[in-house]
Amino acid sequence: MSLVNIDVTLRDGGYRNGFGFDLDYARAHARLSLAAGFDWVEIAYRKGSFKPVPKLGLTGRGDDDYIEAIAGEVGAEHVGLILHPRNIDDTDLPAMYRAGARLVRVCVAAGDPQPAFDAVRRAREIGFTTCVNLTRVTQLPARKVVDLAVAAAEAGAEVVYLADSNGSMLPEQTARLTTLVKSVANVEVGLHAHNNLGLAMSNAMSAVDAGATWMDSSVLGMGKGPGNLVAEQWIAYLERTKLVTGYDLGTVLHLADLLGRSVPESAPSLPLPDLVLGHFDLSVELRGDIVEHDDHRLAVHTAKSLAAG
Amino acid sequence: MSLVNIDVTLRDGGYRNGFGFDLDYARAHARLSLAAGFDWVEIAYRKGSFKPVPKLGLTGRGDDDYIEAIAGEVGAEHVGLILHPRNIDDTDLPAMYRAGARLVRVCVAAGDPQPAFDAVRRAREIGFTTCVNLTRVTQLPARKVVDLAVAAAEAGAEVVYLADSNGSMLPEQTARLTTLVKSVANVEVGLHAHNNLGLAMSNAMSAVDAGATWMDSSVLGMGKGPGNLVAEQWIAYLERTKLVTGYDLGTVLHLADLLGRSVPESAPSLPLPDLVLGHFDLSVELRGDIVEHDDHRLAVHTAKSLAAG
Repeated sequence: MSLVNIDVTLRDGGYRNGFGFDLDYARAHARLSLAAGFDWVEIAYRKGSFKPVPKLGLTGRGDDDYIEAIAGEVGAEHVGLILHPRNIDDTDLPAMYRAGARLVRVCVAAGDPQPAFDAVRRAREIGFTTCVNLTRVTQLPARKVVDLAVAAAEAGAEVVYLADSNGSMLPEQTARLTTLVKSVANVEVGLHAHNNLGLAMSNAMSAVDAGATWMDSSVLGMGKGPGNLVAEQWIAYLERTKLVTGYDLGTVLHLADLLGRSVPESAPSLPLPDLVLGHFDLSVELRGDIVEHDDHRLAVHTAKSLAAG
Repeated sequence: MSLVNIDVTLRDGGYRNGFGFDLDYARAHARLSLAAGFDWVEIAYRKGSFKPVPKLGLTGRGDDDYIEAIAGEVGAEHVGLILHPRNIDDTDLPAMYRAGARLVRVCVAAGDPQPAFDAVRRAREIGFTTCVNLTRVTQLPARKVVDLAVAAAEAGAEVVYLADSNGSMLPEQTARLTTLVKSVANVEVGLHAHNNLGLAMSNAMSAVDAGATWMDSSVLGMGKGPGNLVAEQWIAYLERTKLVTGYDLGTVLHLADLLGRSVPESAPSLPLPDLVLGHFDLSVELRGDIVEHDDHRLAVHTAKSLAAG
């Protein structure tokens, strides 16, 4: 089989440190990430994440000079960015390409997907490899997933990513959604997992078993809340099972060590409120309603009520 | 299905804090563990772990008065201990039973299993529920696992536990070993997982799918190295999938919060050297050979050589 691995540390990990990686670290990270065997390094959001973040750092802006610096380090053919279509204007995609990005991932808002598909169409014309990310995919009816996947493929998306934004996906559900998307659209399927319930590895295996061929992970799992699929665990699994070859565990561990020493916010953690959010498939925007309870029994009760609507 | 869950925090978590839980904490832990739905609380090693530990704390000794205190708190029918047969004499099992323990788990040394089977036979005569733990099961040839399982059943063991002491088991291997033991011996099968490779949840699911009916987990995953199956993740999974009922996520999270506040050593961590050990199925006794390398690429190289013998 073939499998495309994206290292999303610099981007999703940015939720932990205000996207405040410095350029020297980002350069070193990208270089080691490629040496470890990753196909793409997702280096930033272009012009911000879903919600505005104050004092947005380097990897929350994705400016042209930053793209140029990383492309100079590892080659444009390994540099990707993600974006929300509402944050960009007509000048962004051409500027990103000129600066040296070759992968763009466009987040799809299920309620208003057309701007995302327009961005995908434009990106393909320019020459990008293009993915769409179906965010909060666990909250979408299957019929909606079908419609979005078909429309994304028609717009020119080469990969449809299932983004388990709430960290609530179960392996059986991952397999079902992967099969569903592959059945209706001529696209590859990717998984962006979050580890709220300790299921990121299980979901990754389940997705690949069902035919997914693109996978996100981050070093030390550094990502929003309890983080993403842990890159070093995933690479270890690929090495052990020989599912795919060409990855180097020693180098990814060397990178994990560097990240741990350089960025204190990368320390692994499993916050209990995020487990509750994942369990009830609630968005991180509701975290405040959960953490206000000192007693986690009340937190679970509140989450249950919120999930019931 | 039916599933018996053992909370091993006080015992396996002891590797993190010199088994130094205090009695008040152990009482509170056991009470909440039962309230969360655990069937058994494994409260200690009797007279020490595999390797002698200096200044062995409360849950590394498992003295009679400690057993009495916890049995008084939650009832003897929920109190278990684990032991290495070489550490006990003829007086221990009767004294443990009198003090109020009703579950005993006997670790089997594959090279010299007879003392374990003798202890199991004696424990059954006394009235204990009895398990054997096949430690470092990943290093045993399948034929050896068969022999040990059959002999354990003949000695009166009701449960044969696959103990993934090196944290190196893959889900497919877990399923195969579970099926193997169930095929040759009239026993229930249990899993004791370690999370070196981030596979504890995957292995737990795989074991249960293959017919395992006993499961170890620990709160916050607190256990040797990167720890065990994380109890709150496992209970969340059971609640979501409705595989079994009667567990209460809010209470286990309340307990996780209490543990986190009371015992600093319980903080989740994923040490890189333990990932290397798990990846190459090496015992924790070789950890020193791994951590001496500042460069994890050399650590992987060393581990590979050690694994090749």
